[in-house]
Order: sequence, then structure tokens, then C-alpha cells
Amino acid sequence: MFAVTILGNNSAIPTTERHPTAQVVTCNEQLLLIDCGEGTQVQMTRYKIRRSRVKHIFISHLHGDHYFGLIGLLNSLSLLGRTESLTIYATPELEAILQLQLECAATQLKFDLHFVPLRAENAGVIVDEKDLEVRFFPVRHRIPCFGFVIEQRRKKRKIIPEQAQAYEIPAAFYSQLQEGADYQRKDGVLVKNHWVTLPPAPSKKYVYCADTIYDEELIAQMEHADLVYHETTYLHGLAERAAERYHSTSVQAATLAARAGAKRLLIGHFSSKYTELQPFLDECRPVFENTELSVEGATFLI
Amino acid sequence: MFAVTILGNNSAIPTTERHPTAQVVTCNEQLLLIDCGEGTQVQMTRYKIRRSRVKHIFISHLHGDHYFGLIGLLNSLSLLGRTESLTIYATPELEAILQLQLECAATQLKFDLHFVPLRAENAGVIVDEKDLEVRFFPVRHRIPCFGFVIEQRRKKRKIIPEQAQAYEIPAAFYSQLQEGADYQRKDGVLVKNHWVTLPPAPSKKYVYCADTIYDEELIAQMEHADLVYHETTYLHGLAERAAERYHSTSVQAATLAARAGAKRLLIGHFSSKYTELQPFLDECRPVFENTELSVEGATFLI
Repeated sequence: MFAVTILGNNSAIPTTERHPTAQVVTCNEQLLLIDCGEGTQVQMTRYKIRRSRVKHIFISHLHGDHYFGLIGLLNSLSLLGRTESLTIYATPELEAILQLQLECAATQLKFDLHFVPLRAENAGVIVDEKDLEVRFFPVRHRIPCFGFVIEQRRKKRKIIPEQAQAYEIPAAFYSQLQEGADYQRKDGVLVKNHWVTLPPAPSKKYVYCADTIYDEELIAQMEHADLVYHETTYLHGLAERAAERYHSTSVQAATLAARAGAKRLLIGHFSSKYTELQPFLDECRPVFENTELSVEGATFLI
Repeated sequence: MFAVTILGNNSAIPTTERHPTAQVVTCNEQLLLIDCGEGTQVQMTRYKIRRSRVKHIFISHLHGDHYFGLIGLLNSLSLLGRTESLTIYATPELEAILQLQLECAATQLKFDLHFVPLRAENAGVIVDEKDLEVRFFPVRHRIPCFGFVIEQRRKKRKIIPEQAQAYEIPAAFYSQLQEGADYQRKDGVLVKNHWVTLPPAPSKKYVYCADTIYDEELIAQMEHADLVYHETTYLHGLAERAAERYHSTSVQAATLAARAGAKRLLIGHFSSKYTELQPFLDECRPVFENTELSVEGATFLI
């Protein structure tokens, strides 16, 4: 399972209908939280996201609509008895803010909180696990801001059962076959791994572009992604305002997705001025047909 | 109009049904916000509270369920174009937290933000306006914490129309009569104010006791209040746990209200462990009949 669930799709000012930015990526058994606007913890409850399974939290930047819900979530996790450690990836200032808030409340979290500071000059891999890799990259916004590439690694080779049986390889050796090992038979025959397996399925890739001005340098990050999330704060009629505020429009997001050869585009971070979201799709689809609205509570397979 | 509207009635962990502490006091044309847990700004929208009319915000203490929604509210007020100044009354550390958050976001609020630091040794009057007085007092909690006494002053004397007409006082002079002035007639007669007016109605008093352990010293603050808000985090069976955590129970709140001769008691800050609130009323009313549950969205006249 590799999917993303939308918890908030709105830009700065929350409404009763739309919440500020937050998404949960499910990668096999693990949950990753990307951004955490005010109200995220309640949205997690509403959409039955198991908070306890989140081990990594990525904060793109320190505008409030992307992180004001984080301290409340940490607080609640502690009150609910979490003991497993949690890692936060963000610009280093976030650590100072959280520490000050915990100190003023005389709160000692019941779990270890690790911080990985994000600085543009160190862009690259930040999570490197057996079936998961996360990289970050800088994007152009009013303050330091980062996007994330999340890859579900599929390293296991695929066994061809008829072949493995034909060579009389015992089932107990199958997991080693998946890792690429050759099999030495007792009669002296060395069964080469590629005789009995196929290469792993290609990794799947989700690219989260955070808040950004229209920037063609993003194309390199988005290339061949299975799913790209790109903000569309405004409809294209407000392209000038978007640029002034370091945000993007519908048509701009769709243009980048098309040029990058992405498979699918997810748009969000809609300005509160829009009550209807359909016009965003109507503007994107002629440019990049495979566009979806990040509707709160919806889950998109990657 | 002197009333309190409940925006949040829950203790630490918010749920989809109940929000952390926040209340709005309406005093004539003015709104006062008391505490501001996560999600308060959306609750204000939901219950049609005009955020622009809030000029004073009182934060009882720096546990997150009483202030995590403040930075988001300030941010939104600024984005919505507020220019009128706003005053926050809280322990001094709050100013450092908010300044750090604004700085990291490179946000310059569009309005002046004033801070009035609350320190136990200075307990007393913090707002002194024509028709409104607010005092603060320390309460006993795990960290520095304060309660507030909000008085709607009624300084205008009440004109007795028949008397004022009998003395031939022109209507244009009525507002001066309400302020207590005598009237000098052209024929030389000095009409004494008390011949034609009655004393002002007595002030009305709302006492907000914040988060507190059972503490009989609160009785002095609550005396003869028209409405007292006292937390009841737990039902009385958990009195021991309440004391350990510097919180109170249903029966304890009711006992204090009864002993103080308060007219009405409002209870809230219910632990998330309780899904039903009726048992809180059932425990309070035998001790102090005039008890009400702080139901979200409900308005109580003071």
C-alpha cells in the first residue's frame, strides 16, 4: 500500500469546511505526516488515521497554515501514552519554538523527539529505510521552504515459481532468492539468481512541492513521478497576485506536471476566497488531463 | 447585553465533538476572548462571533489547550485586514512564543499587538473602561495560572420620566442627568439629581476560575457573582486524580459556588474520557442547583 490521504486542502485562513495543509502518506505499514496545520489532530481522528503509527513528520516551512497544529498533536500523543520516538524534519527554528512551548507548559513529552534540520545546501536523502526513501529539495517561496520526494522502494526480486521448482530450490531459500542470491545445489549446479527471478517492480514516487512560485526547476524533481502534489492557491486569472505572493495557479501546476511527464497531478492549498473548487479542475485538465482535487478525507493511491 | 458564549468545553485532547477551552464574553458592543485553544478561530466562524470586535484576549495559562489556537487567530485577523490594536493579557512567556513564531514566518501583523504581562504579585485591575472592568487573580495549578473577574459596570443613573417632566427638564439634558448632574432652571430653582433619578442598577459580575485544584480561597473571588465558571475536569469519583493533576471535580465546583453565594455556576473543561456530560450535572445539582453545562455554541446571559 502506497497512498496519500488529504487532511487539509486550504491556504492560510481555515474555514468550517476546509482545513489548512496536512497530508498523510501510507507506505506499507508506516504513516508519514506532511505538514500539520491547525486542527490536523482532529482531522486525523475524523478520518481514522492512527496517530500512533506516524514515525516521521515533515514540515515544509514555517508559515502557520503548515505547522500550527503540530504542537497540539505532539501534546496529545504524549497524553495518550506514546513512548515510541518521533522524528521531525523542518527548518531548525521549529525546534526552538516547540522547546519554548513545552518549557512554558512544564511538559516533558513521554517519547523522544528527534529533529532533523532542513537546510537548502544539504538537500538530499533524509529517510533511508528498507522500503522507503525520502529526499527533500528547496522550493522558491517567501521564506525557506522545502518539497519532498517519497519513494516506496521495491527491492525484492520476483520469483518465477515454475522455474524455481524446476531447479528444485527449497522454499526455505525463497527469501534469499528475492534478495538476489544464487542457489548452490548439492549436485554441484550453481543456479544463477536471474534464471529463477525477475527484477523488482520499479519504485513508486510521490513528489510534494509545498508552497511555491511557478518554477521550472521543479520539473527535474517531478520527472516520471507517479503522483505529484503541486499547490494551486489561485485560479489562473490571478497569476500576477500568485507571483507576488510566491504562490502558483492551476494552469501553472498543470504545465509543470505535463512537462515533467508525471503520471498524475494532485492540486490543493486553495485560497479561502474560492468556495467552489471545480473551476480549478476545469482550468488544469485541458493542460494536464490526469489532475485531481485534493478533497479532504480522500485517499489517492500512488 | 452581558453574556458568555462557549466555544470549547474540553480539556487537553480535542475530539471531533468537543474543542479545547475558549469563551467569548459580550459586554455591550465589545467582545472579550477568554482562552483560545486549538481551533478557536473556526469555532468563532461556526458560531458567528465577529472576530473583528474582539479587542481584549485573556489567556489563563500556557497549557496548550488554553492557547494553541491564538497564533492562528492573530494570523488570520491580520490576513483579513484588521488594523485596530489588540491587547493580550497572559504570563510574559507568551509574548516570546508569539514573537518567535511571527519572526520565523517573516510575518508583520497589520495591527498593533499589546501585551499586558500577568504576574501573581500584581493581581488586580487590568481593564478599566467606562462600562467594563476586568481584574485577574492567581489560581493554584501546575504552572502559573490566572482567573478573571469581569464586571459590566452600570454607572448611568436611571431617570424617573414623570419626575423629570414635572420639573420641566428638557430631554437634551437627560444624558447629563444619567451622569448625576443637577439641573439649574432659568427661574432659579436647582433641581437636585436624586429628585429625578434612581441609582444605577448594580454591576453584573462574571468570574472565570480557569484550571484549578479545589481551593477555598476562590470563594472570596466568586462571592455574589451572577455567574461563575469553574472547571470540572473529572466526576467526583476521581477526586484523587483531580488533586494530583491540580484539577477539580463536579462536587468541588458546586461546593465552592454554594459557599460563595454565587447565583449560577457554569462547569466545563471536561476530560476527554467522558463521552456523556449529564453525569456532571447530576453530581453538581444536589450541591448547587443552579448549575449549567458549558455546551459548545450555547450563550449564557450573566
